[in-house]
Amino acid sequence: MAKTKQKKPQRPRAATPRGFRDYFGAEVTRRADMLRTITGIYHQYGFDPLESSAVETVEALGKFLPDVDRPNEGVFAWQDEDESWMALRYDLTAPLARVYAQHRNDLPTPYRRYAVGPVWRNEKPGPGRFRQFYQCDADTVGTPTVAADAEICAMLADVLEAVGIARGDYIVRVNNRKVLNGLLDNLFGSEAGEGLRDGVLRTVDKFDKVGEQGVRDLLGPGRKDASGAFIDGLGLSSHQADVIISFLLARGESNAATISNLREVVGTSGIGADGVSELEQIAEMAEAQGYGPDRIVIDPSVVRGLGYYTGPVYEAELTFEITDEKGRPRQFGSVAGGGRYDDLVKRFTGQEVPATGVSIGVDRLLAALEAKGRTSAEAQGPVVVTVMDRDRVADYQQMVGELRAAGVRAELYLGNPKDMGRQLKYADQRNAPVAVIQGGDELAAGKVQIKDLALGARLAADIQTNEEWKAQPAQMEIERADLVAQVRAMIQRANA
Amino acid sequence: MAKTKQKKPQRPRAATPRGFRDYFGAEVTRRADMLRTITGIYHQYGFDPLESSAVETVEALGKFLPDVDRPNEGVFAWQDEDESWMALRYDLTAPLARVYAQHRNDLPTPYRRYAVGPVWRNEKPGPGRFRQFYQCDADTVGTPTVAADAEICAMLADVLEAVGIARGDYIVRVNNRKVLNGLLDNLFGSEAGEGLRDGVLRTVDKFDKVGEQGVRDLLGPGRKDASGAFIDGLGLSSHQADVIISFLLARGESNAATISNLREVVGTSGIGADGVSELEQIAEMAEAQGYGPDRIVIDPSVVRGLGYYTGPVYEAELTFEITDEKGRPRQFGSVAGGGRYDDLVKRFTGQEVPATGVSIGVDRLLAALEAKGRTSAEAQGPVVVTVMDRDRVADYQQMVGELRAAGVRAELYLGNPKDMGRQLKYADQRNAPVAVIQGGDELAAGKVQIKDLALGARLAADIQTNEEWKAQPAQMEIERADLVAQVRAMIQRANA
Repeated sequence: MAKTKQKKPQRPRAATPRGFRDYFGAEVTRRADMLRTITGIYHQYGFDPLESSAVETVEALGKFLPDVDRPNEGVFAWQDEDESWMALRYDLTAPLARVYAQHRNDLPTPYRRYAVGPVWRNEKPGPGRFRQFYQCDADTVGTPTVAADAEICAMLADVLEAVGIARGDYIVRVNNRKVLNGLLDNLFGSEAGEGLRDGVLRTVDKFDKVGEQGVRDLLGPGRKDASGAFIDGLGLSSHQADVIISFLLARGESNAATISNLREVVGTSGIGADGVSELEQIAEMAEAQGYGPDRIVIDPSVVRGLGYYTGPVYEAELTFEITDEKGRPRQFGSVAGGGRYDDLVKRFTGQEVPATGVSIGVDRLLAALEAKGRTSAEAQGPVVVTVMDRDRVADYQQMVGELRAAGVRAELYLGNPKDMGRQLKYADQRNAPVAVIQGGDELAAGKVQIKDLALGARLAADIQTNEEWKAQPAQMEIERADLVAQVRAMIQRANA
Repeated sequence: MAKTKQKKPQRPRAATPRGFRDYFGAEVTRRADMLRTITGIYHQYGFDPLESSAVETVEALGKFLPDVDRPNEGVFAWQDEDESWMALRYDLTAPLARVYAQHRNDLPTPYRRYAVGPVWRNEKPGPGRFRQFYQCDADTVGTPTVAADAEICAMLADVLEAVGIARGDYIVRVNNRKVLNGLLDNLFGSEAGEGLRDGVLRTVDKFDKVGEQGVRDLLGPGRKDASGAFIDGLGLSSHQADVIISFLLARGESNAATISNLREVVGTSGIGADGVSELEQIAEMAEAQGYGPDRIVIDPSVVRGLGYYTGPVYEAELTFEITDEKGRPRQFGSVAGGGRYDDLVKRFTGQEVPATGVSIGVDRLLAALEAKGRTSAEAQGPVVVTVMDRDRVADYQQMVGELRAAGVRAELYLGNPKDMGRQLKYADQRNAPVAVIQGGDELAAGKVQIKDLALGARLAADIQTNEEWKAQPAQMEIERADLVAQVRAMIQRANA
């Protein structure tokens, strides 16, 4: 055989690709816990789980990316061996449309489904913006009734409360794309093509960011953005811009007042009137079920940028203030959104299949819970059984086994056991509640030392009198036979 | 605006890409339940969760694909905008090596971690072979002690029992790559290059498939495979093949007998003797913790094809028989495997970082549990509240709300309510335990009809006397005020 050792190869770089990251320990379990809570509510509402593959054909995904304004919008795509193009899914809605079209004969109608998983965006990464992130969606496919939209808004409120957002700290805002369409029909008649509609949509979607005057400028002559660059406007007349702005500002003191304002805005447009009536029904259904306007409210300023929405659109916003990276207070903002999209399945089948659904921004919601201190506590580490005498590993394994059998999370120190300090430092790093130590003297006497590491840390941190120290010893010698009971008691004291 | 309607575009095909599939309902929850049980055991043993991104740089992934024999082995890869190559991970071990190299200063040593998630293989898909599947791994990085290997074997046994594989229905078989290496040193001396070693490894890994004579032929002159094609052999002498076969067959009546046989096989090889001694320690540790050879056994026929293993290798096999697709009984076979790989992190850092770990084939294990009837029961559908009078949707929503508030999974029928037969058919398709019906007469009388759909199906299927039918009515009229209590009672009866 020829020698295989040749020139030393370059070492690979140990790094994630740009825009990707790793999640460790409690970051993983907190998200899993939250997703379990959310899907529990979805389940309670009769939604069934669906897990589609991460990879779809590019033709099935279509061109429904939400961020058409960004230069790097897109998917991660490649060619299969048979030359066909595949891509990572960019959301959970496009795969649902494909799944429903593919399996519709075997699925109930309507089909309520939920889905959880990562999605991928081929965008320029930025601070806090990753190219892989989680979504957690619920959709109802196959029914035109706005009862389905109302149900999802109510479910969204329940989800937020279930994960720990208090009533009063969130609001689900509802609007209807038909109202905007009716208004545009009134303004432009049949000359309003898709391009103009999309332009108006994207512009009014910036209302939260650029404010009333910003939207007015962008609808009309254009404006300078923060960087000083000039952004072309849509060139609408000042009257046309006024009408659109009056729509955005049509929210009244009550849902009834808002509905009345909207009726005025849409005038004689049939589609507009339909939209207003749908909003009225949603508000009535929500209120009848106990979701008053403090939780679900009609708000015409909600637009949702996605072009594919055809009816009601909704958004869950967290209304409490957080401090941003520059120390300024600001509202937390949107954590979930969705709406009705009646044409996504039709792409495949040619038949109209009405659908509505919501997507929760899992990472943003987690960040919100952290800001409120509502995430589950830092996961407790395992009890660490140290190795005082390296010839007696079997004895220490025995202790670990007893603890585990009793339901106590426990592990043997498997590093180099040359000194105890290193082992205790490891136990601290593992967030261990208790360390177990047994040297030759203890063995001979049938004893074991157990060390309360949480208390040890507190004692070291606080100024304590000698009496307190003695009353609460961080380390104690116990009978070997009492190991499990005493460790358990120590953990309970530490968690009390 | 120009007209946008032009020639009707071709409709996209509603299909997953070749080799991918969707998972529905109980398929999703069963897997989630099983993974929760497995990671619960991992947690109990002190392992911490890690979730790395699905996408890695190609240079970080390296060339460690397990299936070097297959023509289409490989990863799904593409170029980023900056020309660098990215790919979907093909397992959870390569990402762990990258993560440990990248974050080693912040991680405890040793680092016990578990990971769960899909991996992707760019292979030719086949029946039952998909290009995306789940793995669930546990690894200990940063310690050379075989206590770490023994711990993972014990944990594997605990995992199998926790998910529902009975003791006696599985065996964890352990071998050591060093024994084989020592034997090859003896046989070939320094002339045994990587190529020959890998060839022997891949050949003996086929032992389960082609049997003793098959391996002997492949080590020597070659053989015809099932399709009649001639497979070149490695060209070893018959004596050399004998020695290797004697190694594969060295398993004795007890672990002690196997150890003694292996000592003979490795002769004077130092590395071989190390390997045998490690196996002896693993067997001793396992037995001391109560894992006798009925659960963890030394078995030299376990090889594990992966070239990167450097020490102990282990495999969990299910020993009960199933009936294969041709109706023949066969053993279920391997559901998990792993071993020690001391060089994977070194690729990045240049420093030796010993590591060992196991990967569970989640989908195979699920299939095994299904074959044994040990999966959780088919998920119960929601109570379906039907719509008899479409003007009273709010009333029906009220009923759904009451049921949900009481913890009962419930939904409103949202399809076209034109006839009750259609609604009850939907409820059946949803696997609903109970349907709720309220027409005008019931409303006037303050009553509601509830229908036991499970019982109704049984009554329809069985031949029953009229008396039985009357004694167990599948439908009953109740007071509207008792809705929640009566529905609950009906579900309990149905589940009893």
